[in-house]
Amino acid sequence: MNESARGPAVVLLSGGLDSATVLAMARADGYLCHALSIDYGQRHGAELAAAARVAAAGGAASHRTVSVNLDAIGGSALTDVSIDVPSSPSAGIPVTYVPARNTVFLAIALGYAEVLAASAIFVGVNAVDYSGYPDCRPAFIDAFQALADVATKAGVEGQGPRIAAPLLRLSKADIVRRGQELGVDYGLTVSCYNADPQGRACGQCDACRLRAEGFRVAGVADPTVYFPA
Amino acid sequence: MNESARGPAVVLLSGGLDSATVLAMARADGYLCHALSIDYGQRHGAELAAAARVAAAGGAASHRTVSVNLDAIGGSALTDVSIDVPSSPSAGIPVTYVPARNTVFLAIALGYAEVLAASAIFVGVNAVDYSGYPDCRPAFIDAFQALADVATKAGVEGQGPRIAAPLLRLSKADIVRRGQELGVDYGLTVSCYNADPQGRACGQCDACRLRAEGFRVAGVADPTVYFPA
Repeated sequence: MNESARGPAVVLLSGGLDSATVLAMARADGYLCHALSIDYGQRHGAELAAAARVAAAGGAASHRTVSVNLDAIGGSALTDVSIDVPSSPSAGIPVTYVPARNTVFLAIALGYAEVLAASAIFVGVNAVDYSGYPDCRPAFIDAFQALADVATKAGVEGQGPRIAAPLLRLSKADIVRRGQELGVDYGLTVSCYNADPQGRACGQCDACRLRAEGFRVAGVADPTVYFPA
Repeated sequence: MNESARGPAVVLLSGGLDSATVLAMARADGYLCHALSIDYGQRHGAELAAAARVAAAGGAASHRTVSVNLDAIGGSALTDVSIDVPSSPSAGIPVTYVPARNTVFLAIALGYAEVLAASAIFVGVNAVDYSGYPDCRPAFIDAFQALADVATKAGVEGQGPRIAAPLLRLSKADIVRRGQELGVDYGLTVSCYNADPQGRACGQCDACRLRAEGFRVAGVADPTVYFPA
């Protein structure tokens, strides 16, 4: 399909493995992809630097970053330096959960979709190999779709942009395989919660563990660069 | 009722007439009110300065401001200086509409409510004397409630904070009368889209017209200070 036959879409791009795959899938689906990253006071800038590399390498038509200082409301190890990121799995919803993060990201993407007259918003949420966050569940995506259908100018006619979450029911290994087929360069991506300024990973956090296991199960070489031991 | 008998609530506070009234209503309902303002790249700082005054005078337990640069995605006369604010009513949804603004505001409030374990979020949207914005309609509030019920830790148990929009079906005159009963000092508030740094109003924009008419119909003295002629 012609790469822009379906018109503009907004693609939420974090700089991680999942959203890099989503960008490739959205392009393969025929959308002209406008990448959107959110600077929400996360601990490190390595993720946002990765997002810029992924947008360029992945053929995004544009890349913008919106800043929202979620650290002002606190409540997460990812935005509050006084809370440590755990190095082993925890029961229940972990402290790395950022309250309402995906709701905030999709809300900003919804505004951008309205400005662009985009017919879809792509987001890399995943309900299989994930950390137990409430806003990664299918019920959350369904509820946001219902909101998008009434919240905008297009919503006055009862039809908002489609909320596309193509990874929702894929395992991490399935995601890696799909990205591999589409030529995603995972060496450009950063998933680690503790990444250093060069984007090197700790190998210990939830995000590192899920990512490494995905490459292993998929049988794909893992390009992740870890901290020196 | 004891002023904090119902525990914490988040109150979205813009610095305008409507949200000042909502703060007074939430306190009268027995909530400990944590005021939240959003700096979204609006044209002037007069509104945010008013929010700080209103929070202090209105007995908020705290007041925080979260910044999100919606001007990075453009699309509104309120955040894009290249689009003029009209001085006469327009057909349809006006250029002062900020794409998905209330969705973004409520999303951030939802995160803050989760951090505070607040049982309610108060928002001053109004579907009677308003400017025709899609995200001021009852269907929007209902959809956001359904989202809040699944989007957070509390939502995992199927019960998010209540989205309270007590002005939804009130006329501007009803709002002014209710605020007058509750002792709101409307002289502290700024509604104008074109307010100057001192918070003085243009008297021409939609927001000014709706506000002036509200005071007139309610038979309440209008404390608004306008630009010198």
